[in-house]
Amino acid sequence: MQIIATLATDRYFSCMKVLPDSTILPRLLGSLQHLSWDEAARRARRIRLVLTDNDGVLTDTGVYYGPDGELFKRYSIRDGMGMERLGLLGIETGIITGEESPNLKRRAEKLKLKHLHLGVKDKIATLTRIRRETGLSPEEIAYIGDDVNDLGIMDIIGERGFTAAPADAMPQIHDLAQYICSWRGGNGAFRDFAEAVITLRLIRE
Amino acid sequence: MQIIATLATDRYFSCMKVLPDSTILPRLLGSLQHLSWDEAARRARRIRLVLTDNDGVLTDTGVYYGPDGELFKRYSIRDGMGMERLGLLGIETGIITGEESPNLKRRAEKLKLKHLHLGVKDKIATLTRIRRETGLSPEEIAYIGDDVNDLGIMDIIGERGFTAAPADAMPQIHDLAQYICSWRGGNGAFRDFAEAVITLRLIRE
Amino acid sequence: MQIIATLATDRYFSCMKVLPDSTILPRLLGSLQHLSWDEAARRARRIRLVLTDNDGVLTDTGVYYGPDGELFKRYSIRDGMGMERLGLLGIETGIITGEESPNLKRRAEKLKLKHLHLGVKDKIATLTRIRRETGLSPEEIAYIGDDVNDLGIMDIIGERGFTAAPADAMPQIHDLAQYICSWRGGNGAFRDFAEAVITLRLIRE
Amino acid sequence: MQIIATLATDRYFSCMKVLPDSTILPRLLGSLQHLSWDEAARRARRIRLVLTDNDGVLTDTGVYYGPDGELFKRYSIRDGMGMERLGLLGIETGIITGEESPNLKRRAEKLKLKHLHLGVKDKIATLTRIRRETGLSPEEIAYIGDDVNDLGIMDIIGERGFTAAPADAMPQIHDLAQYICSWRGGNGAFRDFAEAVITLRLIRE
Repeated sequence: MQIIATLATDRYFSCMKVLPDSTILPRLLGSLQHLSWDEAARRARRIRLVLTDNDGVLTDTGVYYGPDGELFKRYSIRDGMGMERLGLLGIETGIITGEESPNLKRRAEKLKLKHLHLGVKDKIATLTRIRRETGLSPEEIAYIGDDVNDLGIMDIIGERGFTAAPADAMPQIHDLAQYICSWRGGNGAFRDFAEAVITLRLIRE
Repeated sequence: MQIIATLATDRYFSCMKVLPDSTILPRLLGSLQHLSWDEAARRARRIRLVLTDNDGVLTDTGVYYGPDGELFKRYSIRDGMGMERLGLLGIETGIITGEESPNLKRRAEKLKLKHLHLGVKDKIATLTRIRRETGLSPEEIAYIGDDVNDLGIMDIIGERGFTAAPADAMPQIHDLAQYICSWRGGNGAFRDFAEAVITLRLIRE
Repeated sequence: MQIIATLATDRYFSCMKVLPDSTILPRLLGSLQHLSWDEAARRARRIRLVLTDNDGVLTDTGVYYGPDGELFKRYSIRDGMGMERLGLLGIETGIITGEESPNLKRRAEKLKLKHLHLGVKDKIATLTRIRRETGLSPEEIAYIGDDVNDLGIMDIIGERGFTAAPADAMPQIHDLAQYICSWRGGNGAFRDFAEAVITLRLIRE
Repeated sequence: MQIIATLATDRYFSCMKVLPDSTILPRLLGSLQHLSWDEAARRARRIRLVLTDNDGVLTDTGVYYGPDGELFKRYSIRDGMGMERLGLLGIETGIITGEESPNLKRRAEKLKLKHLHLGVKDKIATLTRIRRETGLSPEEIAYIGDDVNDLGIMDIIGERGFTAAPADAMPQIHDLAQYICSWRGGNGAFRDFAEAVITLRLIRE
């Protein structure tokens, strides 16, 4: 058996036969704006690091408060598999967030993420620091965010990299993002973007 | 770069270019009733305090019970940012609720709210007390509520102030409120109303 | 100010003006089947006890499991207010459930329910016992259920009493129930039914 | 009273009268693909074991993280009743999952499941082991899964057995599965599939 993938329409890959052991069967979920499919594919092929916000992207925007403060955050098992699938292609994942959450620290340990930036006030400064530490160029970085404090970093990364927003992001972010996920934050939005990157890389020039 | 915001239609601001460091890029989410856009803008410009109910507005109406009683409540990270954004414009936020919840107390501390009224049986009496303490006039106060025990206070505030209801409020409240949020309680309803106040203030007379 | 309520259409009461202190402003949410509006109103006027299942009606069908077993159940603040509103009309609420949940016990204490039947294997036998203890006749009892183990008791109560199902009940229950809620279990289904009983009682013969 | 069930349309059984004590009143929720109704009924009649993935099928894909790691998982009370109903027909249920979750262990104990396979890296190998231990042939096993690590085992079981996917499964799984549930993972997807197996067995050849 063999994957025979062709971009049948603008939005979907059709796959003739499923490989039993396939873990990278491609499938696009969301939609594209501001970029042509060819340009998006060109950008996706160059990505080596996907950065993500935490609350509202990896979580469902929920803040679950008990009498002793925040009790937990809701993540999605599918985002973890998205990070694994990106890893198989040599693409790393990193988190940049304004919060200082011990819940997130434990989740990031479980996901074995190397890039974890908590309590960030200036996301653009953190991006500069990550670029200096990794030596990555602007076109090698993607970003997914959901709220107005992501506008600045998404404006910059969108110039040469690739940007995305969960289905339930703030409308200001929906206007700016290049890939709009079909799935909501904490409910597979990151996975959706990961599948888009994986799928677009398979389009032949 | 610069924000060039114009009210293109009755419902949406269009923004030509996003400022990287903008935190008050305007965008309307919900819809208006009982007031004209001009009157709503006039009212929004005068607001100095937004009062909100807790359960069903800041929370998702969920009461999560374990063997020892209520375990937690679900809030939204986006409402916290809405309160911050209102604060940048000099608008304060306050909570009036019939419940006596320690979960809410912790959440209110985190959000640094000055006006927190728990265990309220008569919301109209509490409004009078807040007005006496703050010296605010009726047209400087807004209110968002979701259930029949909010009818009285919303009827009064709606006369000269500004009132709102989450997308999933009781229908009795939907009939009365002036702004109907697109987002549900505990899922950004307060933020939605905050964005409406922010956006309407930008409409030039 | 005064409530002027008239049944404008089959489904909605229109209310000319809201009383600030009104707690029984009527409003129908769901839909009716198997009964005419007149017959439903006649039955609603006789109800003195509303019985409800727990999981899937008062809760969202969720079973939240931690390493030590069930951690909590999700109830709705609005159902509590529905029970209060029924109480104002002299109508009691009772729970019949197959489970033995300490979470439910605590919730029932908070709601001050007198009729709480846990670990019930035969709901019809429990109904007989309740009728013997309260002296209520068949036409004075209503029931809301969501799954196949509610079929028997709903078939019996539906003959002369009044029955309902949450929006997300099992389809077998949707076929049988007389009132179909617009709201889901754990998300106001009970409140929806309570509002229906309250509203239908206001229809003049 | 008596159940008179006939397959009125391709999708729904109509039932003339509900038996008060009926627990197997049939009703189909989802939809079928890749198989005719007759072939699906033939396959459903042979099933003696329904295998299921955990996260995304029995759970809502949520990973709820507190400061000490995962706090709980969301299951559905209705899936438990689905397993009971299958048990009444002599059909067992088993779980195969890549995770090592103590939450799941407790849930499986409560549900009295005999087949529980945690920390599985190769689901096809586990299937072989289950077949050897139980002596079941390929046409006696059904499987419901939601993500790409279920593709291999679903491809094999789908040849002679019966396969399903929750309403919110990954699209790769939606392409492959024979029965598409109307309900989402952790919200009754397993129950939906159980009802399909129960209902299809009632179709007379």
